[in-house]
Amino acid sequence: MPEAGGFRRLAIIGLGLIGSSLARAARQFGGAGTIVAIDRDPAVLERVRALGLADEVTDDLAGVAGADLVILCVPVGAAGAVAERMGPHLSPGAIVSDVGSVKVSVVAGVSPHLPEGVTFVPAHPVAGTEYSGPDAGFSTLFQGRWCILTPPEGSDPEAVARVQAFWEGIGAIVESMTAEHHDLVLAITSHVPHLIAYNIVGTAADLEAVTQSEVIKFSAGGFRDFTRIAASDPTMWRDVFLANKDAVLEMLGRFNEDLAALARAIRWGDGDALHDLFTRTRAIRRSIVAMGQETAEADFGRGRPVTDTTSSARGEE
Amino acid sequence: MPEAGGFRRLAIIGLGLIGSSLARAARQFGGAGTIVAIDRDPAVLERVRALGLADEVTDDLAGVAGADLVILCVPVGAAGAVAERMGPHLSPGAIVSDVGSVKVSVVAGVSPHLPEGVTFVPAHPVAGTEYSGPDAGFSTLFQGRWCILTPPEGSDPEAVARVQAFWEGIGAIVESMTAEHHDLVLAITSHVPHLIAYNIVGTAADLEAVTQSEVIKFSAGGFRDFTRIAASDPTMWRDVFLANKDAVLEMLGRFNEDLAALARAIRWGDGDALHDLFTRTRAIRRSIVAMGQETAEADFGRGRPVTDTTSSARGEE
Repeated sequence: MPEAGGFRRLAIIGLGLIGSSLARAARQFGGAGTIVAIDRDPAVLERVRALGLADEVTDDLAGVAGADLVILCVPVGAAGAVAERMGPHLSPGAIVSDVGSVKVSVVAGVSPHLPEGVTFVPAHPVAGTEYSGPDAGFSTLFQGRWCILTPPEGSDPEAVARVQAFWEGIGAIVESMTAEHHDLVLAITSHVPHLIAYNIVGTAADLEAVTQSEVIKFSAGGFRDFTRIAASDPTMWRDVFLANKDAVLEMLGRFNEDLAALARAIRWGDGDALHDLFTRTRAIRRSIVAMGQETAEADFGRGRPVTDTTSSARGEE
Repeated sequence: MPEAGGFRRLAIIGLGLIGSSLARAARQFGGAGTIVAIDRDPAVLERVRALGLADEVTDDLAGVAGADLVILCVPVGAAGAVAERMGPHLSPGAIVSDVGSVKVSVVAGVSPHLPEGVTFVPAHPVAGTEYSGPDAGFSTLFQGRWCILTPPEGSDPEAVARVQAFWEGIGAIVESMTAEHHDLVLAITSHVPHLIAYNIVGTAADLEAVTQSEVIKFSAGGFRDFTRIAASDPTMWRDVFLANKDAVLEMLGRFNEDLAALARAIRWGDGDALHDLFTRTRAIRRSIVAMGQETAEADFGRGRPVTDTTSSARGEE
């Protein structure tokens, strides 16, 4: 088994940020023998060729033939349609996986189109940046990040183990859970955060009393942090919200309840309630930093001067 | 006039992140002759002495005597009380300034306690990190960041010009506006962003269906970005929300309206409305980056591998 997971031929469908990072990672860390890049966008294919990201490059979904691992890296709303068109070309024994941020709807959309003898092992690497496209990818995107597998009950354990080995080979930490639980967890750790970031950036842009120029100039007060995730790929995120509607609306309901209580505390001058919450939330960041999922550097290390020797980023309370 | 603004003796009251950064900056970039550090917390004074941040260090507000520039760097809720106690010690002709994130309430709290012949030039440097205390400060915190002055009508233009020169001397870009407008602008660019960040971190911590360990592990999906500003100083932020109640609640009302519309678009599957918003918000980040208020590096440059030569952070749509 020369490669992690033992895959000879890896087909990646969709060479955006994630797909192109996968191609780079698989090549750099030995995730597969031959890499086939499939994308319907001629501009993307041209960049993939220019960057030398794959051994074979095509716009034809028939390119999945002969692959023992096929990874769908398309927006979750497109996964079903792509599966339908590639299904007839899949080789017996192939494993199909994906990288979608929503799992229940992807499983429902993809599974019916896979022929007998092909196993679907849904996966979601919890990693990304605000940039899109094949130029934005990089080989170490998945290092130290979690990748969640949501194998349906009764999945072939051998296939699951091989997909796990593939992800571990490119640096990810793998955890398994049900698709339903995944969608709930990600609704709060990813989808609702994106939704409220998109929302506040939109709110700020639409104000009459405050100009857009003022919003931009004084964004270092906190607003600019939100603009990063509100700069994420619009198509990907449209699909995420539509595909994970129930969990997103449920978590958003909780968020709204809590926000109403907070607004009430402000209106009635309940400083203790505010201080208590703000102290609790500070501790949660410490846990995230301690678990290696976040930098401890002040301000994300963003713009931190390298020449300033008087500084130290020790947090105090 | 050897120093920017021509101040001979600068008294800084409150040596937290901002106050200690001011002391470092004034010393490094020549903002004042002698620096006096005043803080009521013995632990802070000990660190200020150990770090050598000031020429004189005291817990006595009488230390403002002889200073021609006094800068209040205390939580906005404490500004009035501190002004009342230091007022009798202020020297004729002194300029008092502050760094508070709210201006109307600070002006109302401080002004009545200043003796005749002392000018108040309220200021707010839009800069900071999620860390607190004298060890967290650094001299370049204000470089390239805006500092907003809100001089009341009829202020001595000479005093305002000197405070402006002081801030420009330590690297800030200065803009003036009314205190009322400041509070509205900062409500949307800083206060409401902090409020919703604190809120979602609290919501996530309180869920039953998703464990805290899951929230922490899978935070790279977006959530962790919010934890940075939700790790900001609890006392400072409690005071901000109480002091800028009206503007915060007004902007929060706008945010909530927009969020309700977004939730409705999700519920009814209006993908176009989502895609339109998500495309608009992406453009706003570009403007912030273009204006030098944000890094263009993917993911804030956080955890970006220095060894990965295949990557390029070019954004695409």
